[in-house]
Amino acid sequence: MVKRVEIRQSVMAADERHARAIRKEMGRRSIVMLNLIGSPGAGKTTLLEATLRKASFRCAVIEGDVATSRDAERIAAAGAPVVQINTKGGCHLEAHLVAKALESLPLDEIDVLFVENVGNLVCPAEFDLGEDGKIAVSSVPEGADKPLKYPHLFHQALAVILTKADLKPHVAFDDALFWNDVTGLNPKAPRLEVASTRGEGIGDWISLVEMWLRSKGEGR
Amino acid sequence: MVKRVEIRQSVMAADERHARAIRKEMGRRSIVMLNLIGSPGAGKTTLLEATLRKASFRCAVIEGDVATSRDAERIAAAGAPVVQINTKGGCHLEAHLVAKALESLPLDEIDVLFVENVGNLVCPAEFDLGEDGKIAVSSVPEGADKPLKYPHLFHQALAVILTKADLKPHVAFDDALFWNDVTGLNPKAPRLEVASTRGEGIGDWISLVEMWLRSKGEGR
Repeated sequence: MVKRVEIRQSVMAADERHARAIRKEMGRRSIVMLNLIGSPGAGKTTLLEATLRKASFRCAVIEGDVATSRDAERIAAAGAPVVQINTKGGCHLEAHLVAKALESLPLDEIDVLFVENVGNLVCPAEFDLGEDGKIAVSSVPEGADKPLKYPHLFHQALAVILTKADLKPHVAFDDALFWNDVTGLNPKAPRLEVASTRGEGIGDWISLVEMWLRSKGEGR
Repeated sequence: MVKRVEIRQSVMAADERHARAIRKEMGRRSIVMLNLIGSPGAGKTTLLEATLRKASFRCAVIEGDVATSRDAERIAAAGAPVVQINTKGGCHLEAHLVAKALESLPLDEIDVLFVENVGNLVCPAEFDLGEDGKIAVSSVPEGADKPLKYPHLFHQALAVILTKADLKPHVAFDDALFWNDVTGLNPKAPRLEVASTRGEGIGDWISLVEMWLRSKGEGR
């Protein structure tokens, strides 16, 4: 077991070096890098599509999926530079995969890099990709009990976005339970509700990203 | 890297022994054991609640979650013997955890053992728990593109259940895409649509489980 731990530590350390290098590069360029994490079907890609339609900042996207390039095709159709990473069974993105994907993106021409992680509320929360922050994306039809059942992501999230808010009339969703549990795990994270297909709440989300952009620009 | 692979193989082999022992025990007892796998919020617990309300066979449930015992409390309220496994960050159940949980269940008094895996469409598909089959649970609001994006589970599933069918009027869901992709991955698996909160489709699901019960009883 000792050997297993040692080898795991060495693999993790190599990936942490990649994450540090990415964070340094994004800092030098004042690019805000956001790692979107949520369940399969939480609405991460639809949120990005709505963001690309409305934002005045320039975006690129890295799409992480177990298989298919369906999400990257949707992002490309929305007009942003995009790279698809297929993990071929892997349940999360790692920094070395992101470093490789960055080689194909026009970093001189963007303000914000969105990384859409593999649809998974557990594993991606464990891995630093060099991002400014992880964005927890949780949808109304998943139910209000998710924050406490998957606490690690919500605890560390830079912001929490509740998606598919337009479905509230059609499902039992306990708003107070959801947001109280988020508060318990992460009292200071900004929180947003959106209905991406209708564009509702997207303006507030874009304002939040613009605030991070200004902070990062000033920190340079 | 060689050492890492060897150690991983040894850990996997130990777990395979647990899975084999569980399968043998369930065979001896003619208990049908089903491993429910789906995204967070796919409706696995609600499907089980509806099943417990309507089934004439005797059930027990093992609940797998990263944290909380909320699901086990719901199952207990529905009247079935239940054991909660908290993986404390772990993204899937393993056979040694199930073996331990079985010690607390009245196996002499049940016909069907449901294992509700951690909400995760990726990792749990990789692990044999000794079950008769994995049941892929996917919900309408997650979107119709899930089978091809998470092919490993759908490929090997004993049956595919599309949940929250009552939400179809309120979301864009491409039935043909979903079921065509399922057919491509797993042409022979029985397929069901349910709306668990309304009890719709639950009778068909129970009939399917009863068919597996008869097959297993005859195979003894």
